[in-house]
Amino acid sequence: MRLIHPEPGPEIEPIDLIEGAGLRELGATEHFEELGRPFVYSNFAATVNGLAAIEGRSGAIGSETDTQMLMALRRAADAVLVGAGTVRAEQYGMLMPGEEMRRRRRSEGLSEQPLAVVLSGSMDLPWEAGLFSSGEGEVLIATSSGEEPPETATPVQVARFDGEIDLAELMGRLRAEHGVLAMLCEGGPSLHTELVEEELIDDFFLTVSPKLGGGGGPRITSDLPAEVFDLELVWLAEEEGELFSRYRRASA
Amino acid sequence: MRLIHPEPGPEIEPIDLIEGAGLRELGATEHFEELGRPFVYSNFAATVNGLAAIEGRSGAIGSETDTQMLMALRRAADAVLVGAGTVRAEQYGMLMPGEEMRRRRRSEGLSEQPLAVVLSGSMDLPWEAGLFSSGEGEVLIATSSGEEPPETATPVQVARFDGEIDLAELMGRLRAEHGVLAMLCEGGPSLHTELVEEELIDDFFLTVSPKLGGGGGPRITSDLPAEVFDLELVWLAEEEGELFSRYRRASA
Repeated sequence: MRLIHPEPGPEIEPIDLIEGAGLRELGATEHFEELGRPFVYSNFAATVNGLAAIEGRSGAIGSETDTQMLMALRRAADAVLVGAGTVRAEQYGMLMPGEEMRRRRRSEGLSEQPLAVVLSGSMDLPWEAGLFSSGEGEVLIATSSGEEPPETATPVQVARFDGEIDLAELMGRLRAEHGVLAMLCEGGPSLHTELVEEELIDDFFLTVSPKLGGGGGPRITSDLPAEVFDLELVWLAEEEGELFSRYRRASA
Repeated sequence: MRLIHPEPGPEIEPIDLIEGAGLRELGATEHFEELGRPFVYSNFAATVNGLAAIEGRSGAIGSETDTQMLMALRRAADAVLVGAGTVRAEQYGMLMPGEEMRRRRRSEGLSEQPLAVVLSGSMDLPWEAGLFSSGEGEVLIATSSGEEPPETATPVQVARFDGEIDLAELMGRLRAEHGVLAMLCEGGPSLHTELVEEELIDDFFLTVSPKLGGGGGPRITSDLPAEVFDLELVWLAEEEGELFSRYRRASA
């Protein structure tokens, strides 16, 4: 890919583009220390007509380069936040399957796999998916359920909430107890919407694939209130007509 | 605005960018003569999360530059196609209010106003809106209704269809009987979807404003079948974080 905004740039790999963004360093700044939460960023791929999934899966939308972008964004994260529905729909495997990415993380003193933070009201999760069965990394399940998770090859911790899961509190705990400075949110749309509404998200990495999609899938957000939230376009990269944008919440 | 793809360019006004695209010349080519229809292009503004309207109106989405882009796209058109719902929701005025744009059209031997082609199943239209009451330009109503339109200051013709309005037939008539070489479609989403499905649309001019929108408005398309239609990114321009893209149907 190449950067086309704010200035044109030479060919660059997604991993190098994202590494240059210093997302953990952002999370380590005084601003986020005072906020008491990690720097939070999301990643979605959508079609030109705004669909984030076709027939329930996001796979049909982005290219191989989009997958590289997702991996680069995971590589930069201490934790990856994802809703139970998305784990189910996408049958999550381990977050960081590539050896090169794991080597890069080790060389920076990070764990090979980011902490997977799964939100689940009911503790109804696809325990057979690679995320739980690979034995790689660690999962933290945030839940308001009283259920216990089954034995899984991947170590699982549970963070329990009375009633609704309080995202701000969860983020505070992740920073204080798990040292999470940078967290990637991979959706789904309703979790993403909650983060926007509660102003708990800073940057949006959005891939727009040169496609029109059908079948009435979800957008990257579900039901925001009928108002407008301003963003700033931080950068834009392009490859074969696919656009890789980075937006920032204007009030962030 | 400035072009940032396929090559970076100097500052350019929307009217000059669109004039350089030669849309009527495209419609005059042998390809479209053989197809027996105009070159058809659409224009929509959407938020980053894919909303084409907020609280039923598109006005909250695009900037002043987006309005200039719309006017530039109208200026290049022999006809503007729009659904009755959009005429009602946006309370359409005359299509080409600006004197400079009208002057440019006259100097090219075009009528001051493009022909407004309004699709209406029921002939239930906002007759008080400027489109009908200004007396400027001409309206052609394509309808399957047997109703007669009321007397209006703007001259109105009616093209009647038995049952559903056949868009391909309408386009053939527009080319053959009205000399329409280039036609802009301004929506709404369900008309846009029909054009995509029937492969009656060539280029998509999409503005993406740096905003997240709420309130569950429509996308730029409504219910396409659950498949993917490939597009090519022809160009991309930017101003203050707002993106002005031009896509082409890959099979066009």
